[in-house]
Amino acid sequence: MTQSFSLIDVDHGVHDTTTVIAADTVPSAPADAEWSIRMVRLHGGLSEGVDVIELNNGCLKLSLLPTRGMGLWKGSVAGTPLAWNSPVERPVNPAFVDEMRRGGIGWLDGFNEMLVRCGLGWNGAPGNEIITDADGNTVSEQFLPLHGRIANLPAHKVTVAVSDEGQITITGLVDEASMFGGKLRLTATLTTWIGSNTFEIHDNVANIGGSPTDIEMLYHCNFGAPLLEQGATFQIAATEIAPRDARAAEDCDNWTQYLGPTPGYAEQCYFVAPIAGNDNRGLALLSSADQATGVALRFDTSTLPCFTLWKNTQATEDGYCTGLEPATGYPNLRSFERQHGRVTTLAPGADISFEFAISGCTSADDIAAVSAEITALQGDTPAVVHTVPRADWSA
Amino acid sequence: MTQSFSLIDVDHGVHDTTTVIAADTVPSAPADAEWSIRMVRLHGGLSEGVDVIELNNGCLKLSLLPTRGMGLWKGSVAGTPLAWNSPVERPVNPAFVDEMRRGGIGWLDGFNEMLVRCGLGWNGAPGNEIITDADGNTVSEQFLPLHGRIANLPAHKVTVAVSDEGQITITGLVDEASMFGGKLRLTATLTTWIGSNTFEIHDNVANIGGSPTDIEMLYHCNFGAPLLEQGATFQIAATEIAPRDARAAEDCDNWTQYLGPTPGYAEQCYFVAPIAGNDNRGLALLSSADQATGVALRFDTSTLPCFTLWKNTQATEDGYCTGLEPATGYPNLRSFERQHGRVTTLAPGADISFEFAISGCTSADDIAAVSAEITALQGDTPAVVHTVPRADWSA
Amino acid sequence: MTQSFSLIDVDHGVHDTTTVIAADTVPSAPADAEWSIRMVRLHGGLSEGVDVIELNNGCLKLSLLPTRGMGLWKGSVAGTPLAWNSPVERPVNPAFVDEMRRGGIGWLDGFNEMLVRCGLGWNGAPGNEIITDADGNTVSEQFLPLHGRIANLPAHKVTVAVSDEGQITITGLVDEASMFGGKLRLTATLTTWIGSNTFEIHDNVANIGGSPTDIEMLYHCNFGAPLLEQGATFQIAATEIAPRDARAAEDCDNWTQYLGPTPGYAEQCYFVAPIAGNDNRGLALLSSADQATGVALRFDTSTLPCFTLWKNTQATEDGYCTGLEPATGYPNLRSFERQHGRVTTLAPGADISFEFAISGCTSADDIAAVSAEITALQGDTPAVVHTVPRADWSA
Repeated sequence: MTQSFSLIDVDHGVHDTTTVIAADTVPSAPADAEWSIRMVRLHGGLSEGVDVIELNNGCLKLSLLPTRGMGLWKGSVAGTPLAWNSPVERPVNPAFVDEMRRGGIGWLDGFNEMLVRCGLGWNGAPGNEIITDADGNTVSEQFLPLHGRIANLPAHKVTVAVSDEGQITITGLVDEASMFGGKLRLTATLTTWIGSNTFEIHDNVANIGGSPTDIEMLYHCNFGAPLLEQGATFQIAATEIAPRDARAAEDCDNWTQYLGPTPGYAEQCYFVAPIAGNDNRGLALLSSADQATGVALRFDTSTLPCFTLWKNTQATEDGYCTGLEPATGYPNLRSFERQHGRVTTLAPGADISFEFAISGCTSADDIAAVSAEITALQGDTPAVVHTVPRADWSA
Repeated sequence: MTQSFSLIDVDHGVHDTTTVIAADTVPSAPADAEWSIRMVRLHGGLSEGVDVIELNNGCLKLSLLPTRGMGLWKGSVAGTPLAWNSPVERPVNPAFVDEMRRGGIGWLDGFNEMLVRCGLGWNGAPGNEIITDADGNTVSEQFLPLHGRIANLPAHKVTVAVSDEGQITITGLVDEASMFGGKLRLTATLTTWIGSNTFEIHDNVANIGGSPTDIEMLYHCNFGAPLLEQGATFQIAATEIAPRDARAAEDCDNWTQYLGPTPGYAEQCYFVAPIAGNDNRGLALLSSADQATGVALRFDTSTLPCFTLWKNTQATEDGYCTGLEPATGYPNLRSFERQHGRVTTLAPGADISFEFAISGCTSADDIAAVSAEITALQGDTPAVVHTVPRADWSA
Repeated sequence: MTQSFSLIDVDHGVHDTTTVIAADTVPSAPADAEWSIRMVRLHGGLSEGVDVIELNNGCLKLSLLPTRGMGLWKGSVAGTPLAWNSPVERPVNPAFVDEMRRGGIGWLDGFNEMLVRCGLGWNGAPGNEIITDADGNTVSEQFLPLHGRIANLPAHKVTVAVSDEGQITITGLVDEASMFGGKLRLTATLTTWIGSNTFEIHDNVANIGGSPTDIEMLYHCNFGAPLLEQGATFQIAATEIAPRDARAAEDCDNWTQYLGPTPGYAEQCYFVAPIAGNDNRGLALLSSADQATGVALRFDTSTLPCFTLWKNTQATEDGYCTGLEPATGYPNLRSFERQHGRVTTLAPGADISFEFAISGCTSADDIAAVSAEITALQGDTPAVVHTVPRADWSA
């Protein structure tokens, strides 16, 4: 049996910050760990009006943000933080975010999540997307600010379900729509289990408009201290890796090694072509220096065939972190991605699903097991690490 | 006697989502129909914080939006919907609307009303308004985003009055002001009667600033299914009609006929010079294919001398609808309208009023009566339908 | 002893609009005047969600705006208003302010405070700040909208303290931060005393980010009728005064004299190099025509070495007022200010404090005393009043 709870439902006047979903509300669920789910509303600062769903499955603690496109603010696994410290300390109500600020990077004014979706219509660096016809004449021109709209769109419907088997599912609906601008619906689902160290994301993006619509999706999964530190390492099964730009190319030799907080460090991005197993799952691992804690990221390469590693080991106060980013493409301007076949067009009524899972690793054995799995996935052919950007990957 | 209720009053700390104004609150009002008025606040999604006044006069149901400049979200008459389905499903809090998005058409992110005001300072297509002196030198340059500010400005004072005769009046005050930017006050009044199929808009726009200020007003009245359908028709008493552009010119012959939902259909606009009777009332009619349901729009041509018919019979999911739009001018960039004498300048302390009424027609007799009225108003001289845009109407 | 009250604290779920802090809550405080402090939240219009702290010390009444960067909306001293009437009548929630509107002067959509901070990263006229290297090559380009972000950033923590000696302190924390955009924290403190006609501002701006950050601060202190009127006068101890531009240069001879409300009047700004005494305090005085009421402004020239007088005696309805503006520099584009050594760079961890006090003068004796103090400060050397703009002060 599954018991369901409606936390937000605009159409039915539901906005529930009272109910605590826990063992006594769902007595049929397993009671071997102390778990609870509830929604609170923040007041004051740029967080005014932000709803936060606090999920504790007994092992994982996660703070979800319906107000910010069902992003995941921060979390912890068995007490180890899964988070980073952005200069923006608290969740920002999208009402205060102006995407057009600073030449189109206003998105950064609200950026502090452990997991934030970049999409749905586009993601990547801001710029003018110019579409030309066969003769090279401009058909349309549109300025696309950084990383799209979805992180700054609130969910209009949020449901929590808890099964007798201890499965917890939180589902949010977020519409990215505009008159003469398409209509995409994200059904964002986070699933975990009572006592588990893992959560899964099962997202569906449907074109519920009447015209074909391009979509891009990138999952910006960000981690800082204590997982990230001097000597932390990254591992992924991949066929090829290329630096995004000249700056990244400076350190191709040690692209999997992390520095400690380094004032003045300029970000480095590496674009990866991941290898997947028979189950279509790519696998990446971030490990602390002592290889005793970390996060494993398994992602469905059938719809997320690209991966970006964002190294941002600048000063702690400036937002020391790294981003593990499975995606439909690389975070370039959409027109470049389209040119290279990495933009998905959804026909009216069509949809696409994205899946990945994040596991908190809390022992050297955990890390070793995931690392061995990656090694096996890699097989005998080592990844090619390009020392200069690939022309078809970097705009 | 008239009984009054304050729903919103910032200055006096009033925000009433509790009171239900109905037969038992106003026992002296007619009781021959079940009527009620109340305000609710929406929570979640982009509707967070939007107030909706739900008015049911026993025949008409109307949802007013104080948060969106006293627009009228949707309604019904005797059970027939007066509304359309925008890709934007619910009322959008202006806090989430960035007018500057998409080259100045961000207004469309919140566009889903059955009646939305476009103004007060300007309306029409976005663009740079360049004002030059007699020698052609640029005096000022201002980017004017689509359709002005008023739809995205919340009312600071809203009152409901119910008379013993059954007249219901909802009045909202909305200021469109900025330091060094003028100060206009819209007093938006919706009037109806218990049991009536008609509502009237009596608007007043006052220049309460100290400097002369230009104003433009367009009432964007939008209807979709079931009134609008394959074979639905439009009728208006007019001297002249001209297509807005080449696209509209393609179909001048059947500009009063509607298609069903047509994926890929590109909008067509027709500009109309309406004929008014002795009472200064122009008259337009939208009828369903069987001529059994429709809406009649009577508007005061003394201040709304222009009319635009917006045909937007694209796919249902993309926002299949038509707009009947009485206005002070045509929805071109304000500088073009000014050049052609269609911009009103209000001196300090001056004001202007706009009036129109919408009646839901629910029988073939209703439709026939209105149609006959239009025919009489038209008289013996048929309207001139231009087959190309008029240079003084289209920018 | 000091008793403290938390009004806003996002991190601890505090948002208190219930408590009235007054004689019965703090019985140990002096009871020789009827004083009170409480926070209310506004609903409706553009004020939706704005918190106002109403402080009455028994002589001064002040309305503080945590939602607008701890600005001070309006006030009165012994019944005389300290305020002005902007076309924008009520406090505007920053969620409704788009800084990018009207070519970057959208800030004016929310401008109506008696005291509003302009900063922290920059202030002054909007423009493209282009930074070049030694060879003149463009290193970076950033559009800086009018007067910076701080007025449109809500405080995330607000505390009130009342001491047994009758000192009232209201402290608000406001972060101006963005990923890849620095992290500045304003600790804004307003101090007054039960029964006093004076309030003090003690602000601290700390660079809590990891990179050096430029800051600018200007305190826009604005007064209208009844203090400001035909024949009102301004006095300041200064070495030099220069008109900002040709418009201000027209009236250098009577730059300290005010007109009554003058429709069509175009604003005039005068840049002042103030003289300070041994205590580093500059002193300025605005007096009504009869020299019987006014405001005295004492400011710490060690960190606020510049002063701008903004004369804006346009029509009452357009916002008749004058601004007394102690600042780190003059309100030009930051790149110009930097070029002339008036931009402060804070190293990581560094901070800077700003102090000034405003006293309401309610008698001819008060005015005469302050005036005499200014005369003494000025000494024997009269100020140089330039008749044209100084090239190093005006961009």
